[in-house]
Amino acid sequence: MKKDAKYSVPGFLASAVSAGLKKKGVLDLSLIFSQKEAVAAGIFTTNNVKAAPVLLSQDRIKRGLVRAVIVNTGYANACTGEQGLNDAIQTADTVSQGLQIDPEDVLVASTGVIGAYLPFDRVKRAIPKLITNLSPHGFRSVAEALMTTDSFSKISYFEGTAGGTSFHLLGLAKGAGMIMPNMATMLSFLVTDISIDYRTLWPLFRSAAESTYNRITVDGETSTNDMVLIMANGVAKNKRLNRKDTQQFKRGLTHVMGELAYMIARDGEGATKAVIVEVRGGATKNDAHTAARAVANSNLVKTAIFGRDPNWGRIMAALGRSGVAMDEKKVQIGINGTKIVDSGLMVSEKKEKEAAEKMKKTDQITIAIHLNQGKYTDRMLTCDLTYDYIRINADYRT
Amino acid sequence: MKKDAKYSVPGFLASAVSAGLKKKGVLDLSLIFSQKEAVAAGIFTTNNVKAAPVLLSQDRIKRGLVRAVIVNTGYANACTGEQGLNDAIQTADTVSQGLQIDPEDVLVASTGVIGAYLPFDRVKRAIPKLITNLSPHGFRSVAEALMTTDSFSKISYFEGTAGGTSFHLLGLAKGAGMIMPNMATMLSFLVTDISIDYRTLWPLFRSAAESTYNRITVDGETSTNDMVLIMANGVAKNKRLNRKDTQQFKRGLTHVMGELAYMIARDGEGATKAVIVEVRGGATKNDAHTAARAVANSNLVKTAIFGRDPNWGRIMAALGRSGVAMDEKKVQIGINGTKIVDSGLMVSEKKEKEAAEKMKKTDQITIAIHLNQGKYTDRMLTCDLTYDYIRINADYRT
Repeated sequence: MKKDAKYSVPGFLASAVSAGLKKKGVLDLSLIFSQKEAVAAGIFTTNNVKAAPVLLSQDRIKRGLVRAVIVNTGYANACTGEQGLNDAIQTADTVSQGLQIDPEDVLVASTGVIGAYLPFDRVKRAIPKLITNLSPHGFRSVAEALMTTDSFSKISYFEGTAGGTSFHLLGLAKGAGMIMPNMATMLSFLVTDISIDYRTLWPLFRSAAESTYNRITVDGETSTNDMVLIMANGVAKNKRLNRKDTQQFKRGLTHVMGELAYMIARDGEGATKAVIVEVRGGATKNDAHTAARAVANSNLVKTAIFGRDPNWGRIMAALGRSGVAMDEKKVQIGINGTKIVDSGLMVSEKKEKEAAEKMKKTDQITIAIHLNQGKYTDRMLTCDLTYDYIRINADYRT
Repeated sequence: MKKDAKYSVPGFLASAVSAGLKKKGVLDLSLIFSQKEAVAAGIFTTNNVKAAPVLLSQDRIKRGLVRAVIVNTGYANACTGEQGLNDAIQTADTVSQGLQIDPEDVLVASTGVIGAYLPFDRVKRAIPKLITNLSPHGFRSVAEALMTTDSFSKISYFEGTAGGTSFHLLGLAKGAGMIMPNMATMLSFLVTDISIDYRTLWPLFRSAAESTYNRITVDGETSTNDMVLIMANGVAKNKRLNRKDTQQFKRGLTHVMGELAYMIARDGEGATKAVIVEVRGGATKNDAHTAARAVANSNLVKTAIFGRDPNWGRIMAALGRSGVAMDEKKVQIGINGTKIVDSGLMVSEKKEKEAAEKMKKTDQITIAIHLNQGKYTDRMLTCDLTYDYIRINADYRT
């Protein structure tokens, strides 16, 4: 993680403008462009209700090649029927004309209010400037343009060596609300100059997403618009990747996507704390995951964390209702390294107070659960549930 | 529903006292006593983590006969191991000695903080007064004593005719938080003087619970302590119930349990509105239920309702992630009788505004969804998600 990296990747240009989709003057439309055709892979929402840009991009990425992606905030362009699909196609067409590339090489991503039609005229009017502004150093402003209820922009960077030369990997994401994994969970775009074929890229990408983005939950909701896209343009001109190179690239992917995932959880709508739920000793892989998810999605656990209260009874109740194999008498629970439950019982009031003190002093809470049923582990990232989640979501449209 | 009913049932006595388990002077310990042995049936939490009183009562009710139930608030007596079980047994023993009945005829129910040990000495000290105070008119104070974060006490009454004579049915409940069905979802006690055998009572009771208590969700949580108990003492001396009588009794059960279920949803922690989610046109029974539950448990839908915002995009997104068979283009959504979505698209901004106006003027919101996939229907009761839910649950122990 280079905090001071220039945030650029050879062969990629980016830009963002204000198209008047959100408040006046706010960046809300952005473009990422690969000067060379890029090998690309995407992961899309599993929600049965898919936004128009998801339907379009999911179809176009099947060829495994992409040149550009245009992203707008403010309008999800979901539940907009024929007109929505048409708006997405026209958006891509306008970009392809401006960049003089094949329309099929342009993807579209959107986020914002569901059900409202995209004001395509405003998008169309802004595209020329978006193209003129393209620059190798435009990624910071793209990260800003992606924000909706996010409180900070999310960017992560990695440099590695593979196939005898260095490569660069840059990731952007937006998150905040309507975040629960099941494939993609938000918008995220990754660009790299590594030379890699699709058959190598896809499993690495999918597996990195599985251990990072698919382990976040803010509110148990899965959006209609989620999309994670990676583009690899091969400008690094590395030799064919051997096993070690592949591992190095995978490390980079997991690093960048892991960092972005953490940022998304920490920046959950209204969140004051990032919460890591670790489950060990699950009877099956699925049990470990289900248990972690039940705790991470529990409104009662999350409000207790907001109240800095190590209320382990709510953790036990969430485990109990999750349906996983468990014996209450074997459960251990720790918070930030302080064991507060052993054999299903409170260790001591002193330990509870110790945990409460720790919760006051940090903005990262780790709930470590041992089920003692088997050898399987899992973890989820989430955040606390606060007044501001209510404020943000009660007032979102009104 | 007789608002002015005396709230008594022949052959049953009740009382409530302050045992110092909650704030000083607040009713927190109550007793229901049947002067005759009563046919009884119970439904208990499906949470794998079961409180000591649940374990005890679940075992004792197997005989189908009960004389008394003692209920405390303030302490859930859950996750308290051997000592907790012992405390529950001793509580029942003390009651049985005072009433001079078989200890096996006494059930125990508790609600409150998980993980803390029941201060049995305080319970023991209060039991003599509890017994002295027993009266046919004690049910109102029991309803009050059941309250934890409830904002009003919940009581419902029904009088009917069966087997040639009149019978009475009185129901009490507490709800508020940690409410999601899957069998029982809170504490509820029903007493009736009807003469009925266990084999007739059980299926009627279970089916009434299925369509009422098992259709409420406040926050998707299932408590460790949930218990619904019915006692029928036969004091009405009706003749053996024929088919018509059974239907009449079932109507009473559904009325009383339905009314209590509605009160629980309306009084969800911090709630300002009761929300009814009706799903029609499900491809299967399970789909209709899953869809209704996904919408009713969606934090985003619930915060939108708090904001009086007919944000149907969130309803569509919740339906989409629920995994049920659906075609976005066939979905219809109405709010309090105003159709705002047809064929998956917004009907008009005018209709949305009309729905928003209606939401401002009432404290009962009905979301009517038609999936147009088949003939199955279901409904769930819930409430909005508000600042006060956060306040109540962040501050609960601290």
